[in-house]
Amino acid sequence: MRVKTLEWKPDAPGAALPGCVRMVDQTRLPERLEYLEIREVPELWAAIRELKVRGAPAIGVAAGFGILLAVQQPALDTVQAVLRSVEEAAAFLAGSRPTAVNLFWAMERMRRVARTWGGADASASGLKARLAGEAFAIIEEDGNICRAIGEQGQPCLDGNPSVLTHCNAGGLAASEYGTALAPIYTAAERGKSVRVFADETRPLLQGARLTAWELMQAGVDVTLICDDMAGYAMKKGLVDRVFVGADRIAANGDFANKIGTYSLAVMARAHGLPFYVFAPRSTIDPALPSGEGIPIEERGAGEITCGFGRRTAPEGVRVWAPAFDVTPARLVTAIVCERGILRPPYDSAISKVLADDNP
Amino acid sequence: MRVKTLEWKPDAPGAALPGCVRMVDQTRLPERLEYLEIREVPELWAAIRELKVRGAPAIGVAAGFGILLAVQQPALDTVQAVLRSVEEAAAFLAGSRPTAVNLFWAMERMRRVARTWGGADASASGLKARLAGEAFAIIEEDGNICRAIGEQGQPCLDGNPSVLTHCNAGGLAASEYGTALAPIYTAAERGKSVRVFADETRPLLQGARLTAWELMQAGVDVTLICDDMAGYAMKKGLVDRVFVGADRIAANGDFANKIGTYSLAVMARAHGLPFYVFAPRSTIDPALPSGEGIPIEERGAGEITCGFGRRTAPEGVRVWAPAFDVTPARLVTAIVCERGILRPPYDSAISKVLADDNP
Repeated sequence: MRVKTLEWKPDAPGAALPGCVRMVDQTRLPERLEYLEIREVPELWAAIRELKVRGAPAIGVAAGFGILLAVQQPALDTVQAVLRSVEEAAAFLAGSRPTAVNLFWAMERMRRVARTWGGADASASGLKARLAGEAFAIIEEDGNICRAIGEQGQPCLDGNPSVLTHCNAGGLAASEYGTALAPIYTAAERGKSVRVFADETRPLLQGARLTAWELMQAGVDVTLICDDMAGYAMKKGLVDRVFVGADRIAANGDFANKIGTYSLAVMARAHGLPFYVFAPRSTIDPALPSGEGIPIEERGAGEITCGFGRRTAPEGVRVWAPAFDVTPARLVTAIVCERGILRPPYDSAISKVLADDNP
Repeated sequence: MRVKTLEWKPDAPGAALPGCVRMVDQTRLPERLEYLEIREVPELWAAIRELKVRGAPAIGVAAGFGILLAVQQPALDTVQAVLRSVEEAAAFLAGSRPTAVNLFWAMERMRRVARTWGGADASASGLKARLAGEAFAIIEEDGNICRAIGEQGQPCLDGNPSVLTHCNAGGLAASEYGTALAPIYTAAERGKSVRVFADETRPLLQGARLTAWELMQAGVDVTLICDDMAGYAMKKGLVDRVFVGADRIAANGDFANKIGTYSLAVMARAHGLPFYVFAPRSTIDPALPSGEGIPIEERGAGEITCGFGRRTAPEGVRVWAPAFDVTPARLVTAIVCERGILRPPYDSAISKVLADDNP
C-alpha cells in the first residue's frame, strides 16, 4: 500500500481549475492518516511552514500547486492580473522554508511559464491552463525522477544490505517513492530483502513518525532507533551503509539535509561505511560554490522543549535549534540522482550531469 | 541552590534506624521537584529500576540505604537473621540495574561489613549500627569524591571553555556535585565562566530534564540541543571539549555510559576535540579486562515509541533500545577520578590508581 502524499483535486471532472491541493497532514502521523484540502495560498504557506507537507521534492510540488491556487480566482481575468498573482504568490511561498532549493526551483519553473506564455497575445484562461500544465508536469516528473533514483540506486544495495536512514526521504517527502527510500522500495518490489534502521530524528521525529510508518505500510523490515544510538549501531555491525536525502546540494557536492545528517556522515566515515545521498538534479544549486553559502533555518525552541505533548525541559532554557546541517562532499561516497551515480570529484560530475539536456 | 538528591531520614532524632530513604523523584523533573520517602526494599528496587533515582554514584548510595531498609525491622533480632536479610536484599537490589558497577560495589561494601561484624560475639543491634555507619560512609565519601573530582578536573577547563555533556552526570546523579559536572560547579564557584551545551539524551531526556535543570538552578550558562545536533555544534565551533560520566570502566580504560556517549567520542576525535571521562575509582571494574565484557541493559520499546505522553512511532514498530554503549579507551583523552587525571596507556594508569591505598 502506498499513500498519495499530495495531489491536485479539481472541483469538477474535466477541468483542472478550480480545485484544491489535497495532502496527507504529516503532523498527524502515525496516529491518524488525515487529508487536508487547501484552497488558499496563505493556508498552503502555513502547511509548508508547519511541516504538514515536508520533504524537498514534495515542497516543490506543493509550491507549484500553490501558484494554481493563486491564479484560479475567476476575478483574475486579465493576463496582467494573472502574471502579478504568480509573482506575488511565488515570492510569498518562497519564504515558507528557506533551505529547500526545490521550492525556489519550482517557483522559477512556474514564473518562467508565466513569462513565456503571458505575452501580449495571450488570454488569462490560456495562461492559467499553461500554468496548470506546468504544475502537473512537476508532479509527474517527480514521480518519474523518484522511480529513476530507485533504479539508479540499486548498486548501492549490493550484498545483504542493512541501511541506516535519517529523517524521511521517502514517499511522504515526495509524490510517491521518495529519494533515499526509492532504491529500497524498488529492491523490495523485486523481492530483494533490505533491512532498514530508521533514526527517529529529533526534534520533529520524522523518522519515527513517517519513515517507520511508511516502511511498515510497504512491508519493509524496519527497526526504529534514537539518534544517539546510530554510532553504536554502526559499531555493532547492525547497519552497513547510510542513505539520506538532501535539501540542497552545492556545486562542489556539499549538501544540506536534516540536522543530524552531518553526524551520521562523520560516523560512517569513522566506521568505514559508505554514505550515499539520493536526490533529484533539481536539488543541486549550481550557483552555490560550496555548502558554506547554504542558509540554515533555525526553528522554535518549543520543538525541543515540549515536542512530545509534555514539557521535557525547564521553562526558559536556552536552546540551539538548527533544522538542517551541511555535510562536506569529502564525507559523501556517492550522490545518486535520476541520471546516475555521481562520484568524486563532485564539481566535474555535477557540472556534467547538469549539462545533460537529454529528456 | 543545590538540591539534596537523596539522603537517609531517621524517624526520630538521635537514632539512625529506623528511617527512610528520601529522594528527589527524577522522573517528575523539570516540571515538579517532588521527594519520595521510601521504607521498603522492593519500593527502592522499583525506584532504581524506573530511574526515579539514577546515575552511577547515586545508585550506589541508594543501594547502601536499601540494606538499612532491609535490616531495620525490629523482628530481625538475631545476628543470623540480619546477615540473611543483608544477603537477600543485596542480591535482590543488584538486579535493578545490571550495568551500574557502583551498585555491586556498594552491595559488596555492605556485605563485607556484615561478614566482618556479624561474628559469634556480635549483637543484632550492634551489627545494624555498623551497617548504618557504612551506608553513611558511602554517601559522605561520595560527596568528598565528587568534590575531589571537581578539583582534579580543573585543568580540563583551560582556556575559555564550552563543554558538551551528555545525559546527567551532575548533582542529581550523585549525592551532591556529580562527576562530569563537578569541575564545572567548582569552576563556577571560583568565578570562572564555563558554557555548557547539554544533549537532551534520548530516550529518557536526562540531559533536557535533569542536566539543563540543575545547571540553571546553579546559574551556569547552559544551552540545550538535540542529540543529533552535537556533531554540527562541534563543526561550528560552539563546543570545544566533551565531558561525560561513566557507569563502568574496564581495566583497559574502555567504559560504559549512557547510549550516545560512543557517538560523541567518535565525533570528538573526528573534530580533534578532547573527550574527558569523570568518575570515581569505584566505577572501575578491574576484573573486566575490556569493555567487551560489560553487560548492556536493553530497555522497553515504549521509552522510544511513546516516552512522553504521546505516541510518536507506529504501533508495533520494532525497536532497538540499548540503554548504554561502550566507548573504547583509544577515544578517551583522559579519565579524571578523585585521585587525579589518568592518561593513556590506561591499563597501567588504572592499576596504579587502584593500588593507591592512601585515604
